[in-house]
Amino acid sequence: MSNGETFRIGVLGSGNGSNLIAITEAIERGELSAEIALVLSDVKEAEILQHAKRRGLMACYIAPGKYRTKLDEETEKSYSCALQQADVDLVVLAGFMRILKDELLKSFPGKVINIHPSLLPSFPGVGAWKQALDHGVKFTGATVHFVDQGIDSGAIIAQEPVPLLDGDTPESLLDRIQQTEHRIYPKAIADIAEGRIISKGHRTFRSTK
Amino acid sequence: MSNGETFRIGVLGSGNGSNLIAITEAIERGELSAEIALVLSDVKEAEILQHAKRRGLMACYIAPGKYRTKLDEETEKSYSCALQQADVDLVVLAGFMRILKDELLKSFPGKVINIHPSLLPSFPGVGAWKQALDHGVKFTGATVHFVDQGIDSGAIIAQEPVPLLDGDTPESLLDRIQQTEHRIYPKAIADIAEGRIISKGHRTFRSTK
Repeated sequence: MSNGETFRIGVLGSGNGSNLIAITEAIERGELSAEIALVLSDVKEAEILQHAKRRGLMACYIAPGKYRTKLDEETEKSYSCALQQADVDLVVLAGFMRILKDELLKSFPGKVINIHPSLLPSFPGVGAWKQALDHGVKFTGATVHFVDQGIDSGAIIAQEPVPLLDGDTPESLLDRIQQTEHRIYPKAIADIAEGRIISKGHRTFRSTK
Repeated sequence: MSNGETFRIGVLGSGNGSNLIAITEAIERGELSAEIALVLSDVKEAEILQHAKRRGLMACYIAPGKYRTKLDEETEKSYSCALQQADVDLVVLAGFMRILKDELLKSFPGKVINIHPSLLPSFPGVGAWKQALDHGVKFTGATVHFVDQGIDSGAIIAQEPVPLLDGDTPESLLDRIQQTEHRIYPKAIADIAEGRIISKGHRTFRSTK
C-alpha cells in the first residue's frame, strides 16, 4: 500500500462469491480498510459477477482459454494486465477454480492469496471437505495461504479448525467451513493490508504492531 | 470387556511414560473404569518401566530383537503372547517407537490404539511437532487412532487442535501437544471401554449411550 492511499484488492472467483460478500461486508463494517478495485471471473454466468455488479464494483468476465483446469498463458496475461491496470495491491482468490502459473504470480510476487476448505497440508485439491469426511478426521478447518506454483502448498497465513460432527453430510460440513472462511479471510486480508504479516521462508508471523 | 469384569489395558512404551501416568491418574480420579494389566517396553532403562513399578503395576522389558525401527516377527509374538497372558482387552501404545506388523494386530484385531502428536493425516511419522513448525501451520494437534499396518494411517478415534504460537520452539510446542494428549487419550480409552466407539469403514462414530 503506497502513501496512505486505500489498499486495493482484486478478487478472482468462479462461483457464488460468498467470500467476496464477506469481504465487502467487513469493509462496510470498518473491519477492513480497503476497497475492491476489480472482480474477475472465468465463468460468464458466475454469481460472483452479479454480486459485484449489484454492489457497484467493477466486474469482468475474461474467457479462460482452451484448458479446463488452468488459464492458458495468454489468458493469464490478460488477467494479470487487468489487475495491474486496476492498480491492485493484493490478488484474492475466492473460489477461483483454475490453477495459476507463472504470469500472474510473477506480476504480483507474494501478493496472491487463496482460501482452502481444510487445515492444510491435510486435504489439498478439490472437494477438501468431502476428503475430510471420507478420511474420518474429527477436525478439519479453513486455511488462508499465499499462492505459489504448487497445489495449495504456499506459506500459511491463517487457519482455524472446524469440528466434524457425527451426523455431518458433505453439505452441512461445507456450510460450517464456509462460515469460518467468511470470518478468517477478511481478517487475514486486513492483517496483510496493515503490514502485520511477516514472511520467513515457508512460515509467516504476525507482527505486534 | 467380558461380563462386567474390569476392562484390562496393556500399555507399550519406549520413553518417559507421561501418557501412562495420565491414564493411571484418570483411573484414580474415576474417569476411566479400567485397570492397567501390563506395561511392556522395548527399552530396558525406559522411565515408563520405573513409573509402572513405582505404582505397583506389572511391567516387563522384552528385548526388541535385531531391527532398529520394528520388532522382529518372533519378538512381536512374545509381546503378543505376554499381552494375551495378561488377558488385556485393549493394547495402548504410549510412545512406543517401533512399528508393529502382523502378529500383534492379528491377535488383537481392532484393539490396538496409538496417539500421535499432530492432526493426522498431516505430519505422520517421527517428529510430527517439528514437521508442523517447519511447515508453518497455525494449528496442529493430537490424534488417537486405531493402529493398522500403515504409518499413523488407521481410523481416527479422537482429535484435538493445538495452536502454534509465533514464539514456539519445538520444545514449547511439544509440551502443549502432550498436555492435550494427556487429556484426550484417557477419554478415548474410556469411550472404547464403555463401548461408545462405533467403527464404519475408516470412520468412527460416538454412540449416544
